[in-house]
Amino acid sequence: MPELNQHPENEHQQPSGATRRQFLRGAGTAGAAGVAGLTVMGLGGCAEGAQTSDIRPGQGSAEPGDNDFLAKARVPFDGPHQAGVDTPQQSFIKLIAFNLKESKTSREDVIRLMRLWTDDARRMCSGLAGLADLEPENLESTANLTITVGYGRSLLDKIGLSDKAPEWLGDLPEFSRDELVDAWNGGDICLQICADDRFTLSHAARFMTKTARTYVDVAWMQDGFLHARGSIEPGTTPRNLFGQLDGTANPAPDEHDDIIWINDGPEWLRGGTAMVIRRVAMLMDEWDILDRASREVAMGRTIDTGAPLTGTDEFDDPDFEALDQYGLPVIDPNSHMARAFSTDRSERIYRRPYNYDMPPGPDTRGTSNSGQIFICFQKNPLKQFVPIQQRLDEADRLNEWITHIGSAVFAVPHGTNEGDYWGQDLLEG
Amino acid sequence: MPELNQHPENEHQQPSGATRRQFLRGAGTAGAAGVAGLTVMGLGGCAEGAQTSDIRPGQGSAEPGDNDFLAKARVPFDGPHQAGVDTPQQSFIKLIAFNLKESKTSREDVIRLMRLWTDDARRMCSGLAGLADLEPENLESTANLTITVGYGRSLLDKIGLSDKAPEWLGDLPEFSRDELVDAWNGGDICLQICADDRFTLSHAARFMTKTARTYVDVAWMQDGFLHARGSIEPGTTPRNLFGQLDGTANPAPDEHDDIIWINDGPEWLRGGTAMVIRRVAMLMDEWDILDRASREVAMGRTIDTGAPLTGTDEFDDPDFEALDQYGLPVIDPNSHMARAFSTDRSERIYRRPYNYDMPPGPDTRGTSNSGQIFICFQKNPLKQFVPIQQRLDEADRLNEWITHIGSAVFAVPHGTNEGDYWGQDLLEG
Repeated sequence: MPELNQHPENEHQQPSGATRRQFLRGAGTAGAAGVAGLTVMGLGGCAEGAQTSDIRPGQGSAEPGDNDFLAKARVPFDGPHQAGVDTPQQSFIKLIAFNLKESKTSREDVIRLMRLWTDDARRMCSGLAGLADLEPENLESTANLTITVGYGRSLLDKIGLSDKAPEWLGDLPEFSRDELVDAWNGGDICLQICADDRFTLSHAARFMTKTARTYVDVAWMQDGFLHARGSIEPGTTPRNLFGQLDGTANPAPDEHDDIIWINDGPEWLRGGTAMVIRRVAMLMDEWDILDRASREVAMGRTIDTGAPLTGTDEFDDPDFEALDQYGLPVIDPNSHMARAFSTDRSERIYRRPYNYDMPPGPDTRGTSNSGQIFICFQKNPLKQFVPIQQRLDEADRLNEWITHIGSAVFAVPHGTNEGDYWGQDLLEG
Repeated sequence: MPELNQHPENEHQQPSGATRRQFLRGAGTAGAAGVAGLTVMGLGGCAEGAQTSDIRPGQGSAEPGDNDFLAKARVPFDGPHQAGVDTPQQSFIKLIAFNLKESKTSREDVIRLMRLWTDDARRMCSGLAGLADLEPENLESTANLTITVGYGRSLLDKIGLSDKAPEWLGDLPEFSRDELVDAWNGGDICLQICADDRFTLSHAARFMTKTARTYVDVAWMQDGFLHARGSIEPGTTPRNLFGQLDGTANPAPDEHDDIIWINDGPEWLRGGTAMVIRRVAMLMDEWDILDRASREVAMGRTIDTGAPLTGTDEFDDPDFEALDQYGLPVIDPNSHMARAFSTDRSERIYRRPYNYDMPPGPDTRGTSNSGQIFICFQKNPLKQFVPIQQRLDEADRLNEWITHIGSAVFAVPHGTNEGDYWGQDLLEG
């Protein structure tokens, strides 16, 4: 998108039904009610003004209208980049983090696992069952299956390859509002498995986990979803569980080389990327009592169209200078959009978030256990994700209704050619 | 189906690659390995020989091929029966059980709740948002949404209507292999919410829960799924996580009046039905080590086609008298199919099961937390579900790999006319 970092002036589009002052009172009440709301980003926010141009078009070999359009829909496994990063988002995700078993921490062990895994992933994404799969029928629909691998700092440390790790690989700096739970943090290896069919996803994830169980234990597992294919118009931005259009400002394909794909440093990461995963609990009980106008002020955008409060269209550039009739900024400087916004072109990320919604458990707050699995890809999280998140952590109206409860960073090696295995030039280097 | 209760002779179709004796040894080993496997049914089983004729055809007002075929797909809410019972199965389910708050146990409280709920459910299923929904955009796709209500014995007891309860309403008789967990049992009221879009489902479920929170607390919540629409051919039987075709033997529409719908007794249940919910954990780790031939013997059916081991087609009638070359029955008398089979025409149920697959937690056994949410509808569970389940509880090869961990029975009142509310003639009677 060429029109980055502009602040066009536009004064109309005031949130309807309530004034800014009413909202501020409301927010104060919600805060006083004891919501230890924390940081967010990606919940409809934007780090820039670029237009989404690649959300959920038809892909693979078949299209809706064909009875088995999902059954035969495939995303190529091999290529310069791993699939599942800038692949249009499938409807479902399963993220699984693994830790090496204590008896399996040699480089040879990891090579064996990667050989097995790459072969099975390649086969499954191509519509073949994994090797020795006793339930090949459960993969009858490929449904745009992608399987993507990432390595944590702890993996490289355990197998004696710390010197091959990029400086950004490791825990993110602490953010003041984080309430991270060990159960959702870190991991030696991560598999991101995505598909447009929840059943296919389940089988593929089970098969990968089973293949690996001699080598690794599961550290954590996260399930997420978007709308089903066929439910929203292809190319439109999906909504999150707060009702916000979420994904408006993702970079266009011609910017991916600048933002996502690493093109220097160690060979194994050239063509690769850095993956940040944040589990963001959304406090639905508290959100529910907030009126619609206040929600729009918190976001800086309208709910129906997703337009900035100074515009009329989702993709209008925001005007942070515009004032309302009381002389207050139309877009609250502490709104999520305003805080996430950057005039620094280097602070851009490629977001690929999913919703989660699980039965409440003993650890959940209130009557919901839902939120967002925020996922973003970039060359370097310390330069791209972290500065945005630091601004949001310092001030963001949405912080009242969200809490970051999990965090992980993985290095995603470049893609494979047929016959190669994941991370080959790292592990054999 | 007219050909019920026949045992045609047919001797071929031996499970390939292993003899029955090998299987029996294998099964013994698996049992000795400490699997406290318990009862199942519906995991591909059949209580009779009827052919499925109504699984997942197109419904509502739109079809695949239309870009927004899911967005506009609707199932009529009002009618003589509640929707969501013999409605072709949507891809997703959320079952929520509620208990009345201690301060809200008057009949008037329940009437108020039912008025609110029925109105919101009717609106949402018709493509309108619930009353005062602040996120109406999250219901932009109706995706064949259905919302069905059921009442537990405890509800009727609490509001002084015990005399209106049918004799079958209450806990099922204990089965010897049950390992029921309180967290998945019982409940005063159950909502079954189904849709072909996981996001729509999430919003509808949240809205219903929110509407009700003055009156009830959530007792438990279960999430399930099948294949996505477009992934398997409409009209074909879906598979479960064991890889078995599951749903082969469901009664055809012209049998629903005989099997599902109550037509005598208290007025509020005429046109209604009895809903049984069993949460059945599937022990994937143990199942994974079982070879394919042994799996077929345990089931009594082949995995690929789902045919009885004495037949070649999914819908062939089983031949329980056929012997193999060793003089053993081709279909093991303790196979799931043989044990579930009944020559008693009154022992028939309408199954509507879903898969579940959640991240493993502290309470889960092994590396998986998946299984089946077995749901069946019938006039009288004591006469229909229970005798089948008793046979399976006594002996069923599948018991090694499954455990019933939750159980509930609800009375599903008849359907509504526009303006009526759920259970009106019970609550005002």
